Amino acid sequence: MVTSPVVNTYPLSSYTFGTKEPKMEKDTSVADRLARMKVNYMKEGMRTSVEGILLVQEHNHPHILLLQIGNTFCKLPGGRLKPGENEIDGLKRKLSSKLAANSPSLQPDWQVGECVAIWWRPNFETIMYPYCPPHITKPKECKKLFLVHLSEREYFAVPKNLKLLAVPLFELYDNVQRYGPVISTIPQQLSRFQFNMIHP
Amino acid sequence: MVTSPVVNTYPLSSYTFGTKEPKMEKDTSVADRLARMKVNYMKEGMRTSVEGILLVQEHNHPHILLLQIGNTFCKLPGGRLKPGENEIDGLKRKLSSKLAANSPSLQPDWQVGECVAIWWRPNFETIMYPYCPPHITKPKECKKLFLVHLSEREYFAVPKNLKLLAVPLFELYDNVQRYGPVISTIPQQLSRFQFNMIHP
Repeated sequence: MVTSPVVNTYPLSSYTFGTKEPKMEKDTSVADRLARMKVNYMKEGMRTSVEGILLVQEHNHPHILLLQIGNTFCKLPGGRLKPGENEIDGLKRKLSSKLAANSPSLQPDWQVGECVAIWWRPNFETIMYPYCPPHITKPKECKKLFLVHLSEREYFAVPKNLKLLAVPLFELYDNVQRYGPVISTIPQQLSRFQFNMIHP
Repeated sequence: MVTSPVVNTYPLSSYTFGTKEPKMEKDTSVADRLARMKVNYMKEGMRTSVEGILLVQEHNHPHILLLQIGNTFCKLPGGRLKPGENEIDGLKRKLSSKLAANSPSLQPDWQVGECVAIWWRPNFETIMYPYCPPHITKPKECKKLFLVHLSEREYFAVPKNLKLLAVPLFELYDNVQRYGPVISTIPQQLSRFQFNMIHP
């Protein structure tokens, strides 16, 4: 039989959560966000963003850590690479900015693993596709999702204006209305992995 | 930068298509199919099925080969493993049964590659999930989807009662109504691959 790649997951209770200073969104509206994207594209070319899928378990089922802004919008921790920045280094930097305490001694050991999906933004619009559409020669953004393998114990510091949620795969699945096309199909992208649920 | 696994794809025109004797479906209704699944489960335990994702290109965009039954229903080539059968061998056997000429000298060189998704059927019902739902200790079926790397030239023999279609990723994407949950999210599962479109 073909063996699936293994992901160790630990209970949510293994992790400790604190807070830190707010990290405000750079834009207050979708229109602002797309306008800023356009300005940056003129300066730096295609935007590359990286996001991390951090897994924990509850009731023997995998859960993903999502940052909630306000009462509705959820996103994966991550963000935009600097021009020329390495994807792995950039994702670690973004994970620390979003989820780590400020003290260098309290940085989680971010183990960036498999790339599980790549999404493309053909135009300065919200819609993205899991392929670069035909006839699009200059996509405006490429977003890569990576598995991040967590250690058994970590301390996370969550910006005060955000909530960190552990959302079960069964809640994400087939729920594009609530989570959008990128996050709602993470269960399918993770289906090829074998979850080794460790109960310390 | 992290390098994506590469999949070589060749134009549809590289391949030759003929026909062979019909391969009738074993069941004439969904109810029959679920009843037969139940009988087999009693005899053999959980059903394991394997399906192949065969890629070609047209207009610089990846297309997947699907078998169409009648005018609407599409499926991936593949089928049920025999008890104890190896997944790779079983998939090759099923691909030959569905897509190869009867002559042993005309068998395609089936290169079974990466497992891209695993789906679970918790009950004797049509619904499947990309995870084994919590509290389900005895799933009734596990279905695995594999990439099949095609050579530059092959001869396919399609059963006379079926049509072989090359369907673009952009047609499958976000089209659960037409293709169902398993096939319509293949674009997301393939997004992590880099397609090397070869123009011979």
